[in-house]
Amino acid sequence: MTTIQESAGRGRPRSERAEKAIVDATLDMIGEGVTVSELSIEAVANRAGVGKTTIYRRWANKEDLVVDSLATLRLPMPEPGGTDVRADLIEYLEVMRSESSELRNRCITNIALNEADRFPDLYRRFRELVIEPRREAFRQVLRRGVATGELRPDLDVEVAMSMLIGAMLFHTKMSGPAYPVPDDLAVRLVDEALRGFRYDVTRNVAS
Amino acid sequence: MTTIQESAGRGRPRSERAEKAIVDATLDMIGEGVTVSELSIEAVANRAGVGKTTIYRRWANKEDLVVDSLATLRLPMPEPGGTDVRADLIEYLEVMRSESSELRNRCITNIALNEADRFPDLYRRFRELVIEPRREAFRQVLRRGVATGELRPDLDVEVAMSMLIGAMLFHTKMSGPAYPVPDDLAVRLVDEALRGFRYDVTRNVAS
Repeated sequence: MTTIQESAGRGRPRSERAEKAIVDATLDMIGEGVTVSELSIEAVANRAGVGKTTIYRRWANKEDLVVDSLATLRLPMPEPGGTDVRADLIEYLEVMRSESSELRNRCITNIALNEADRFPDLYRRFRELVIEPRREAFRQVLRRGVATGELRPDLDVEVAMSMLIGAMLFHTKMSGPAYPVPDDLAVRLVDEALRGFRYDVTRNVAS
Repeated sequence: MTTIQESAGRGRPRSERAEKAIVDATLDMIGEGVTVSELSIEAVANRAGVGKTTIYRRWANKEDLVVDSLATLRLPMPEPGGTDVRADLIEYLEVMRSESSELRNRCITNIALNEADRFPDLYRRFRELVIEPRREAFRQVLRRGVATGELRPDLDVEVAMSMLIGAMLFHTKMSGPAYPVPDDLAVRLVDEALRGFRYDVTRNVAS
């Protein structure tokens, strides 16, 4: 643990260093599985090597602190390559898959999914900052695919988006040493979704 | 709250009534959002109107109590109607959708998803008792569809199963007053999955 005192004099203003230490402490604790209910300002202060008043000067309560801490993680989606829908969807699902292997990210998803009932403000802001931009990235790729004629003109974009993201979350959330996420999951998901499950004799004979 | 004393004399052996009160108290607390970490044997005993020793006579620790309580809920999947794969898949997804509206079930899913790291034994048993039988029900419907020729002979059953279950969980987990689950979600999911997203000119001209 690096305390504020130890890291003094590294060139950044003291208040900025304190803020970073507080945010890091918050994210570390969440990453270790501490729930928002269990998280205390005092514990964050101890871990960050600052006084509680330093935290309260900046954040009114722990919900605000958690939301701001989560926001600093910014999980950007890559710009879609734009060659074809299949490649873009696979790339986005790969981002989700590789993120899930980091414990911090897993715990953050947990908070979003499980503490929504207790901390509705936190959930609402997390949804705006993290969840919705991701959904929108998938929607845009799917809509572009409809526009280029790669995807069906009557595709239900909302449902298509939830099938891809949902299936990846289903695997990553349930994963663990005994249940690893298959390396080729993104490709397999996208190919099944694009082809469809139904056996179409005319199509299969024709191709 | 019905205590053991109040419900005495209703015809069931005292020990069976006590057990039911303990399990109900456990499920109620979990349903209210109490995490396994937070749950204490003492609180369960108070709520059930029994002494702590009554609980410890039956369960060695709270993990065992929680698993046995969850197991009593048994969430059976209906026998598939067997007319066609589409109808069976819609029926199964409808079961998942209606269950999600009950808070107890939502919280139980949360435990399974979020406390896996802390309580691996609990998670393993929950997985055996609740998660795997559901997955297997979907797999069987999909495999039968392949056998009858309704679905592609080379369908990736594991991926297909996770797309359907994952998409429904994605919606039900993220739902709430501001984000209701669409009434027709099961139908829309199954139809998109069966048709596939890709626009196939030959097929669409032919049909």
